Amino acid sequence: MQVTIAVDAMGGDHGPPVTVAASLRFLEATPDARIILVGRKEAVQRVLDTTRSRALERASIHATTEVVEMHEPPADALRRKKDSSMRVAVNLVKDGVAQACVSAGNTGALMAISRFVLKTLPGIDRPAIASQLPTRLGVTLALDLGANVDCTPEQLLQFAIMGSALVSAVEGIERPTVGLLNIGEEEIKGNDVVKEASELLRASGLNFYGNVEGTDIYKGTTDVIVCDGFVGNVALKTSEGLALMLADYLREEFTRNGLRRSLALVALPAINAFKRRVDPRRYNGATLIGLKGVVIKSHGSADPMAFRHALRKAYTEVTHGVLERIEQRLAVTPAAATQPAAAAAGSGDA
Amino acid sequence: MQVTIAVDAMGGDHGPPVTVAASLRFLEATPDARIILVGRKEAVQRVLDTTRSRALERASIHATTEVVEMHEPPADALRRKKDSSMRVAVNLVKDGVAQACVSAGNTGALMAISRFVLKTLPGIDRPAIASQLPTRLGVTLALDLGANVDCTPEQLLQFAIMGSALVSAVEGIERPTVGLLNIGEEEIKGNDVVKEASELLRASGLNFYGNVEGTDIYKGTTDVIVCDGFVGNVALKTSEGLALMLADYLREEFTRNGLRRSLALVALPAINAFKRRVDPRRYNGATLIGLKGVVIKSHGSADPMAFRHALRKAYTEVTHGVLERIEQRLAVTPAAATQPAAAAAGSGDA
Repeated sequence: MQVTIAVDAMGGDHGPPVTVAASLRFLEATPDARIILVGRKEAVQRVLDTTRSRALERASIHATTEVVEMHEPPADALRRKKDSSMRVAVNLVKDGVAQACVSAGNTGALMAISRFVLKTLPGIDRPAIASQLPTRLGVTLALDLGANVDCTPEQLLQFAIMGSALVSAVEGIERPTVGLLNIGEEEIKGNDVVKEASELLRASGLNFYGNVEGTDIYKGTTDVIVCDGFVGNVALKTSEGLALMLADYLREEFTRNGLRRSLALVALPAINAFKRRVDPRRYNGATLIGLKGVVIKSHGSADPMAFRHALRKAYTEVTHGVLERIEQRLAVTPAAATQPAAAAAGSGDA
Repeated sequence: MQVTIAVDAMGGDHGPPVTVAASLRFLEATPDARIILVGRKEAVQRVLDTTRSRALERASIHATTEVVEMHEPPADALRRKKDSSMRVAVNLVKDGVAQACVSAGNTGALMAISRFVLKTLPGIDRPAIASQLPTRLGVTLALDLGANVDCTPEQLLQFAIMGSALVSAVEGIERPTVGLLNIGEEEIKGNDVVKEASELLRASGLNFYGNVEGTDIYKGTTDVIVCDGFVGNVALKTSEGLALMLADYLREEFTRNGLRRSLALVALPAINAFKRRVDPRRYNGATLIGLKGVVIKSHGSADPMAFRHALRKAYTEVTHGVLERIEQRLAVTPAAATQPAAAAAGSGDA
């Protein structure tokens, strides 16, 4: 299966030195893939000129003139920059030239442009941000991680259907378990939206495990974890902050004095193995799920290894037919869109 | 200053073997403290009989007949168990016999009983759960961690005033910085409640730092972090889950084979120092803040060391005049209670 990925070469904190280099490494490892590097021709060509990779023949440049800045208001990026590398990369998916697009750029702009250009799938109110997190037992797919601040119970159900379909297609799990993120304090179990969503999920035919708590994310209690974007984003960012702090503490303790430093040397294999297991770069690449096309968001600060993981995610979703699986599941399990179905299908734009 | 603490000796997963043992250790280290052990007389006496501690003379038993179960509905505990160790411990604070109470029991029941017996402070709608978290720079006080699922902007302001007063009194920081937990995605910055709370905080005269993200919690960006109880609970529980997973990973890597195990032995001082720094027992003890009395909730699974930390927290809050400081700050910074002030002052009960 031939897969073409449109890469927003200008996106992210580093631009072409990361995106182009990672694209070539990805192509070397993936013989049936092609990449269209979308961006300023000279900037992209400059990185291509530094390599003699045999993968070069499967990479092409699509020249654009504009760049969406990392902190540009999404509405501005959408309205004014019709020739941005991000917009054109998404257009290539819309036109069927590419089967997926990957960007490390401005998340809000990528979401706004993708919704406007690709539209949402029938029955989906708004796309969500979905990403895999490592757990004790493997991985779990969590969504929404920041696209939708306030969600209706119906939207949470939609997330569950989409997340379940994605895990089913990619991991080969027939009926992934779905957990609804809630709190465990005894006085009041969750808010009204979560209570209603819980009832919808119970009646949905999905493999609904029930409510889960924050601790369950890393326990790997369920294959999919559903929550609104505010809660999901806080959980994700809190995890990032804690992991960084613990890594710093560990480094400090192993370099506190000369003796400790020499101990660190002997302990290095174990420490490195530990670091590899929790390396966030291995989990880079969030899916903007619910669109009529595969769009993967890479972390803005991604290095080539991390960006390569995002490319691999795009490739996997295409080859495993994630979009088709989501559409099938939506047809079987009507998602009770909050908006009238026709509107949701026709105009995913804001 | 003589401080008397009422201890719910029956609370928690272990009851007297933990609560009574920890109380004696605490008394040994704190000569001006007294403890009233509230619970079933024989169960408490049995633990007291195992020791010859010179602190025994500052511990007394207040016999009760009932126990609130860990998973009992709070409303049942409140209505039916008038002679529970938890209820009587809170009563002792209300009656001025003790200056604080500590329980490792059912959180919801402790909250319901405390609100009913002690009432909320004037200007406070509902109490919150506040707890210190370790950061790269020291500690931060986060609230609410689970008592209030949906909060009004005014309640978030109340949390900020109370948290700021607590940190000011205990840590000796004149004007603690306050951060409002929000999400950083570019498309939509937070929901309406957070936006309104942000405006209230800006006008409050508090040292409002602005919005912070999940990553800022462990960075130690601000002295106080304010959020609603749903988000705070998820952030806390997610952190617990991640820390446990990382600790497991570390152990696994250092015991993977015989060679690694012997490396672990030499690396032990560094690993132990690391563990001590992040030991959750050191942070045990959450304040039910906003009540007319000091009530500290210990983790249900606390061991004697962890429970001792909760006792120390109660002692510190009393000796540092936290309640008085909160009342002063509420008088200076009217908290714009959601309910009419008279109702909020008069009836904190549900």
